[in-house]
Amino acid sequence: LKKPELRQNLVTRQWVIISPQRANRPHDFEKKENKKETLPRYSPKCPFCRGNEKWEGSAEVLRIGDKKNWRVRVIPNKYPVLLKEGVREWQVSGIKRKMTGIGIHEVIIESPWHNLSPALFSQQQIIYILQAYKKRFREIAQDKRLEQIIIFKNHGEAAGTSLIHPHSQLVATPIVPYQIRFRYEEAERYFDNTGRCVFCQILAEELSAGERIITQNKHFVSFVPYAALSPYHIWIFPKVHACSFQNITLSEIKDLASILKDILARLYFGLDNPAYNYIIRSSPLDISQSDCFHWYISIVARVTKSAGFELGSGMFVNPLPPEESAKFLRNVKLD
Amino acid sequence: LKKPELRQNLVTRQWVIISPQRANRPHDFEKKENKKETLPRYSPKCPFCRGNEKWEGSAEVLRIGDKKNWRVRVIPNKYPVLLKEGVREWQVSGIKRKMTGIGIHEVIIESPWHNLSPALFSQQQIIYILQAYKKRFREIAQDKRLEQIIIFKNHGEAAGTSLIHPHSQLVATPIVPYQIRFRYEEAERYFDNTGRCVFCQILAEELSAGERIITQNKHFVSFVPYAALSPYHIWIFPKVHACSFQNITLSEIKDLASILKDILARLYFGLDNPAYNYIIRSSPLDISQSDCFHWYISIVARVTKSAGFELGSGMFVNPLPPEESAKFLRNVKLD
Repeated sequence: LKKPELRQNLVTRQWVIISPQRANRPHDFEKKENKKETLPRYSPKCPFCRGNEKWEGSAEVLRIGDKKNWRVRVIPNKYPVLLKEGVREWQVSGIKRKMTGIGIHEVIIESPWHNLSPALFSQQQIIYILQAYKKRFREIAQDKRLEQIIIFKNHGEAAGTSLIHPHSQLVATPIVPYQIRFRYEEAERYFDNTGRCVFCQILAEELSAGERIITQNKHFVSFVPYAALSPYHIWIFPKVHACSFQNITLSEIKDLASILKDILARLYFGLDNPAYNYIIRSSPLDISQSDCFHWYISIVARVTKSAGFELGSGMFVNPLPPEESAKFLRNVKLD
Repeated sequence: LKKPELRQNLVTRQWVIISPQRANRPHDFEKKENKKETLPRYSPKCPFCRGNEKWEGSAEVLRIGDKKNWRVRVIPNKYPVLLKEGVREWQVSGIKRKMTGIGIHEVIIESPWHNLSPALFSQQQIIYILQAYKKRFREIAQDKRLEQIIIFKNHGEAAGTSLIHPHSQLVATPIVPYQIRFRYEEAERYFDNTGRCVFCQILAEELSAGERIITQNKHFVSFVPYAALSPYHIWIFPKVHACSFQNITLSEIKDLASILKDILARLYFGLDNPAYNYIIRSSPLDISQSDCFHWYISIVARVTKSAGFELGSGMFVNPLPPEESAKFLRNVKLD
C-alpha cells in the first residue's frame, strides 16, 4: 500500500485518509515522553501519593485495599469540570441555549506509587482498577440527573495529563454528548438495515480476516480498526454482545485486565512509552438493554498531532496503514 | 460567572462545558511558543524561502508578484495527504468501505521571509494571501471529482506545524467530510424551523448583545462564539449572507484582511504569540447557492489541550467564559 486511500469508520461514518506516502516527511520539531522510572517513587508534593491521603480535596469516595496499604483510591476531582450539587435546568433565549453545569468528576488513583507506568502494573493491579471503574459507574448511574458516564485515561503530556502520578478519570454529564448520540444513531440505522449489531459484525469480520487483530482471549479481542484514525489506534471489544460496561462480570474483568496489560506493554516497549488516551465507550445511562450498541475501549497513542485540517474537516490523516500498525504491535517482544 | 454551565453551539449541536472554576488548577508542565523574530530572515534549508524556489517539489502553481520579488507563492505539498492523479472509485466489501485517495493538497507560502510572524504582516500582504486563497479555490472547484475545499493554517508547534516558515494549506477532498455535512444538515433544519439562516441569526443577536464582539468593519464581524470551545476561540463572519468563500469581492477581501490582521495582532500581543489554527468553513462545492449556509472563519488558539474526555465525548471544556475572552481581546493594546 503506497497510494493513499479513504476508509470509512462504520461506527462514526467518519472518513479517514490512510496516507502512507506522508510517513517520511521532515519535521522541524522532535519530542519524546520521559519514562516515569527516573522519577521518585514518592513525591511529597503529589496529592495522589500513598502517605498524602490527607491532602485537601482528596477525601476518598472509594478505596480498594486497607487504609494504610490501599491499592486503588477514588477521590473527587479537586477542579471538577462539573459540580455535584444542583438541579438540571435548561435556559433557552434566542440563540442561547444553556444548562446548569451539574455532574460528577472523579479521579481514580491507579497506584500508590508516583512513578510506576501503567504498562508495568501487575495484572492484579489492573483488576483492582477495573473493579473501581465498575463500582463507581454503577453507583453514579443511579443519579437520575445524569445521562452519560465517560471513563478515560490521559497518559503523558501530549495526551493532556496535567499530573504525573498514574490516574484515570470519570466524568458523568447531564446530557448525552453528541459524539455518543451520533454513534448510537448510526448503530440503530445499521441495525434497522441489517438486523445486526454493527460492532458484532465488525468483530466477526475482523476475526475472520485476522490481519488487524493484535491479541485475544476468551472474552476480549484487541485490534486496529479498519479505518484507524491514527497509527496504533486500538479497539478492545468484548466478544459477547453487551451495551454497557456496568454489567461486566468478574471473569470478564480478569480477561480485560490481561488484554489491557498486554496492549499497554506493547505500546510501552514497542514505541518507547508514548503518550496515549484510552476511553471506555458505553451506552447512555437510560439505555440498559440494546441490541444495536456494544460497549468497547478505544486507545489512541498520541504519536501524530491533529491540526487545522482535522479541526476543519473532522477527517483524520493516518500515515500508517492499520494492517501495518497491527503487525508491528503483534511483533513487539514482551520480555 | 463562577459556576460551570453547559452551552450549546447552535451550528454543530455540540455542548461545551464552560468551566471557570477549573482555570487555576495546577500543572506539572509548562510551555511557550518561541517568537519567530529570533530566527534568521532567510534559511538555506527552507524550501519556502525566497531564493530557494528551485527546491525539489516547489514548482509553483500560483505566484503573486514578479518572479524574483514574489509576495506569495502556492506550490503543491511535497507530502500530499491525497494524490492529484486518478479517478474516484468506491469499493465496498462487508464492513470495509473505501475510496481512492485522490484530491489536491497545496501550500500557500505567505511571505518570502522565514521569520516573520503573520501577526506582523502588512495588510497588503494579507490581501495577497486572501487573493491567492480565492484564486486557487475557484480553479480547484472546477474539478468534478472533488466535493470540498478546506483552507487552513497551523501556526506554532502545538497547532501541528511541521515547518516554521509562515504558510497555510489547501486540501480538496473527494467526499464532504462529516463535520461539514453535519453542520450543513443542522443549518438546513434550522432554516426549515425558522425560515432564517442560523448564522445570520447568530450575527444579529451577537451584534445586538455586544458582549462577545471583538471588532467589526463594513463587511465583517469578529466575535467569541456563545459556546466557544476554548479560550479565545474566535469566529469571523461576513455580514452579508453568502454560502461560499469563492465569491468574495475585492472590497470584502480588503475588509477581511484588515480584521484578520487585527485579530492575529491581538493574539500575538495579548497572549505572547500563542499557537493557533484558523480554518475557512465554506459550503460543499456542489452547493453554489444556499439560503441556509453561511461561510465563515474559525480561529482556535491552542492554549488548552484536548485530552481523553474530549476524545471520548466530543465535548470541550472551556475554563474561560466567552464574554471574558472577548473582553480581554477587545482590551489588548495595539501600539
